[in-house]
Amino acid sequence: MTVPIGTPADTIGVDLGGTWLRVARVSPEGHVIAMERLPTDGVGGPAGVVAQIEAMTGRLGQDGIGSMGIGVPGAFDARSGTVLGIPALPGWAGYPLAKALRDRLGLDCWLENDAKAAAIGEWDAGAAKGFRNFVYVTVSTGIGACAVVDGRLLRGAGGLAGEIGHTRIAETSERCACGLYGCWQALAAGPALARRAEAAARAAPQSALAALAAAGPLSGLEVGRAARAGDAAALSVVREHAALLGIGFANLQHVYAPDLLVVGGGVSDLLALMRPHLEAVLRERLLPGFKPAEMRVSALGDVAGLVGAAALARLPRDQGR
Amino acid sequence: MTVPIGTPADTIGVDLGGTWLRVARVSPEGHVIAMERLPTDGVGGPAGVVAQIEAMTGRLGQDGIGSMGIGVPGAFDARSGTVLGIPALPGWAGYPLAKALRDRLGLDCWLENDAKAAAIGEWDAGAAKGFRNFVYVTVSTGIGACAVVDGRLLRGAGGLAGEIGHTRIAETSERCACGLYGCWQALAAGPALARRAEAAARAAPQSALAALAAAGPLSGLEVGRAARAGDAAALSVVREHAALLGIGFANLQHVYAPDLLVVGGGVSDLLALMRPHLEAVLRERLLPGFKPAEMRVSALGDVAGLVGAAALARLPRDQGR
Repeated sequence: MTVPIGTPADTIGVDLGGTWLRVARVSPEGHVIAMERLPTDGVGGPAGVVAQIEAMTGRLGQDGIGSMGIGVPGAFDARSGTVLGIPALPGWAGYPLAKALRDRLGLDCWLENDAKAAAIGEWDAGAAKGFRNFVYVTVSTGIGACAVVDGRLLRGAGGLAGEIGHTRIAETSERCACGLYGCWQALAAGPALARRAEAAARAAPQSALAALAAAGPLSGLEVGRAARAGDAAALSVVREHAALLGIGFANLQHVYAPDLLVVGGGVSDLLALMRPHLEAVLRERLLPGFKPAEMRVSALGDVAGLVGAAALARLPRDQGR
Repeated sequence: MTVPIGTPADTIGVDLGGTWLRVARVSPEGHVIAMERLPTDGVGGPAGVVAQIEAMTGRLGQDGIGSMGIGVPGAFDARSGTVLGIPALPGWAGYPLAKALRDRLGLDCWLENDAKAAAIGEWDAGAAKGFRNFVYVTVSTGIGACAVVDGRLLRGAGGLAGEIGHTRIAETSERCACGLYGCWQALAAGPALARRAEAAARAAPQSALAALAAAGPLSGLEVGRAARAGDAAALSVVREHAALLGIGFANLQHVYAPDLLVVGGGVSDLLALMRPHLEAVLRERLLPGFKPAEMRVSALGDVAGLVGAAALARLPRDQGR
């Protein structure tokens, strides 16, 4: 199939994860038309992964496609398309990924940080469509963020803007993954929710939460199920967790002044239950002039990064994306 | 004097403060050529202040000048040049300031938030010249900030981005000016420094700091004088204050990823003394990938806002300033 010049074409989005490699064909409207997933060939290194991407793209159908975007869980040089390093995958430092894919597939290829790719996906075809000021926040094992301010996605020196999970919001906490104490992430990400839920279950052995805890580890899903059934222990976990998540949300508003917070990651399962508590924290903490940002759950969930990477391949360069 | 089209011309910068009104004629290189200062005519309201600006501009010489910029300590609509409200000056809500000045003076007129005007001044002709990623932080009675990220000054919804002084960095503090507890500003602005210094002086009545405290209230200037003379009490104040200022600097780096922090306000008198302690906090708290931002004292001091307002009048609109 030949696509006439000027016709919006599908693009390829790649999510290069430490564990899974996903490749999708995405429509100009941001719909995933087809997707493949394989365990990332960590042993084969960059050459192995490029071969995987080539084979997967071939199976998805490359007809009419001129470009691809790749979400990378590490540092890269956007201009040259070179990977600087991926903590989860050894052997990638200095690898010219964009050039390798261009040589093998004949496609223009753009790199993006994986969290920023997810924000671009929500912006292009998800919960943040049409917004000029929003923050995409993922709350799962850690807390990551990507801010769009005045209609531009913030990168900062080294592309490192948005590491809001490691801002200090308290003197003390459990030890954070970064090794320090008091980080927002140590107080309000998934592991903190699980700890809080398990403590509440132990303290109330007759609760529905305790029954769920006996069956396996607690996440936002279980806490939400028990809370929606009216379980007092689960409801107190929701309230306590929202208090700490809300402090970080208030900080985000003071820093970036968004109209909207898009929440992704496992903890977003609790957003509806936490909303009144989060709004109360925001009303309490925001300076005069601010109003609590709208809060929406990520519309694209775990394909946000794929859709964003594909969007990156489609958008004009001058949009600063 | 007639200025040929295309010749860089002087512009007028105005700093409309709640107490003082300052008007300056500024060269295209950002040098203050002449300046006037008067107590702001709060009683006369907007019409009184516009008359003041007209008279002051006339005395500075309006020949060859085509535009002016005004730093406003409040909210405004940039497009229409209308003031929405100035907390320190009643009667300004809804006043079409840009239009009034255009009608009276025949000059194009641009409004800017006063803190953002100061950042623009440092960017245009001060400590941040040539930087694409920096944060201007004033540490005086409060803490205000303005971030330039990827070569663009951040505004956010309602122009409210940068209220970093009211991000929560601890559970407890003295009560903040905003009424809450734990704000960075409550722990690291001028009043917190003064409290810390006075407590240290009381605890060490033989210290040089105590002698200075007996003569009057302590600010960064006095603490710095005693610390430079080797006074142990003053040195401990410097160290303790830097620890709390540094936590906020680390948060700023994680959030905006600047290469440079430009520090203004009274507490910047202590920057040279605090630098090793600040750098230690940054090295401790920054995630891998980050390096401690360069720290510079504001080069323009209290004329940064005037220079920035004048620069605003000179710069092309499409620079997003």
